[in-house]
Amino acid sequence: MSVVLYDLVGADDRRFSPHCWRTRLALEHKGLAYEARPIRFTEIGAIADGTHTTVPVIEDANRVIGDSWAIAEYLEQAYPDRPSLFGGETGRHLSAFVQNWTVSAVHAGIITLIVRDIHDHLTPEDKAYFRTTRERRFGRSLEEVQAGREERRESFVNGLEPLRRTVSERPFLGGDAPIYADYVAFGPFQWARSISPFKLLSESDPVRAWVERCLDLYGGLARRSPGYDIG
Amino acid sequence: MSVVLYDLVGADDRRFSPHCWRTRLALEHKGLAYEARPIRFTEIGAIADGTHTTVPVIEDANRVIGDSWAIAEYLEQAYPDRPSLFGGETGRHLSAFVQNWTVSAVHAGIITLIVRDIHDHLTPEDKAYFRTTRERRFGRSLEEVQAGREERRESFVNGLEPLRRTVSERPFLGGDAPIYADYVAFGPFQWARSISPFKLLSESDPVRAWVERCLDLYGGLARRSPGYDIG
Repeated sequence: MSVVLYDLVGADDRRFSPHCWRTRLALEHKGLAYEARPIRFTEIGAIADGTHTTVPVIEDANRVIGDSWAIAEYLEQAYPDRPSLFGGETGRHLSAFVQNWTVSAVHAGIITLIVRDIHDHLTPEDKAYFRTTRERRFGRSLEEVQAGREERRESFVNGLEPLRRTVSERPFLGGDAPIYADYVAFGPFQWARSISPFKLLSESDPVRAWVERCLDLYGGLARRSPGYDIG
Repeated sequence: MSVVLYDLVGADDRRFSPHCWRTRLALEHKGLAYEARPIRFTEIGAIADGTHTTVPVIEDANRVIGDSWAIAEYLEQAYPDRPSLFGGETGRHLSAFVQNWTVSAVHAGIITLIVRDIHDHLTPEDKAYFRTTRERRFGRSLEEVQAGREERRESFVNGLEPLRRTVSERPFLGGDAPIYADYVAFGPFQWARSISPFKLLSESDPVRAWVERCLDLYGGLARRSPGYDIG
């Protein structure tokens, strides 16, 4: 039986959630059969027993698991004979560091560059939900948050330096091959690419070359998903 | 025969180099006998064949190795039966990410908070060398770089969020026990503690609790080294 992944989509089925992309690439990494079932923000409460408020959520056999990190740990434990997501216990702890960096340094920056663009790709019901929850979080309108993004790009790009240095010295954070930490760090770039025409990265940026390598993984899965050109 | 570590010192023998602390703690981690031989900035050219411009440098048997990362890789390969610094190949690559984050986010911030204090703890010869090289790098006087540090502390502390989240969830970056990535990330805090009375971290900051755990390692080696109270 296939794993079911509840995978956030916009109005036109584009898959944009950075958290869902982590899980989707982890399922590919493990070589598991799965169905990426589209779901919208305002439908999340209908998943399984109705207790989930965020995606990804997966169903595997009789288990329902939410939270992308918990899902990764579950997959690693449930499928130990498949390729490792973490490369051992030390790798698991250090992958958590990469995730904490990604969330605080990358997600927090990108959201302010594309938040109105996300809104524009949602269904009417999701637009209302997204605007209300995000404007409450930011204390400003989506338009005010995104304003001036051309001027803020350089600061964001400079903050990618730890990733830039690391993927300049090896193809992936995991070395010659990607690991879960790559999927986590790639998530926000796929988020932006899926939903926004705003160019984040210059042609010569080593981060961009690494994003291109991630877009090529698993038969170009992320590249084939609807979105804009990166760069 | 003991390993020799050339270990940067100030005028009064306080060990302050974040890079040398990485290596010193790596030698402790491996359980190797070593001599931490004091050396000053203006004496580095006299090490071994005179080609080295930075410390740490180690001598082990007939080998002379510079650059803290190269030393860590050497120790891991030369002493595979001792406790691992990286926890495997994936751990080695992800440790490089932690180092790249530490250098670009922590070192770059701390230096602007303590650069004049470093100067003040050096010998007259080293003071002249340090002022010339660092003022050329910053394009400003040491006093100008350090000015206004009280107002810049909050921004620096906020930038520690990836480390804070990670060590809130486990004792060390490596999990229950420290690995090389912990020594790398700890280095700049020991740097500041050794050389500056400026308080970086509040009592309640989880980063501070982790720094305290690092200070306790190996019989309190870093805590016993001359310095100021942390916090």
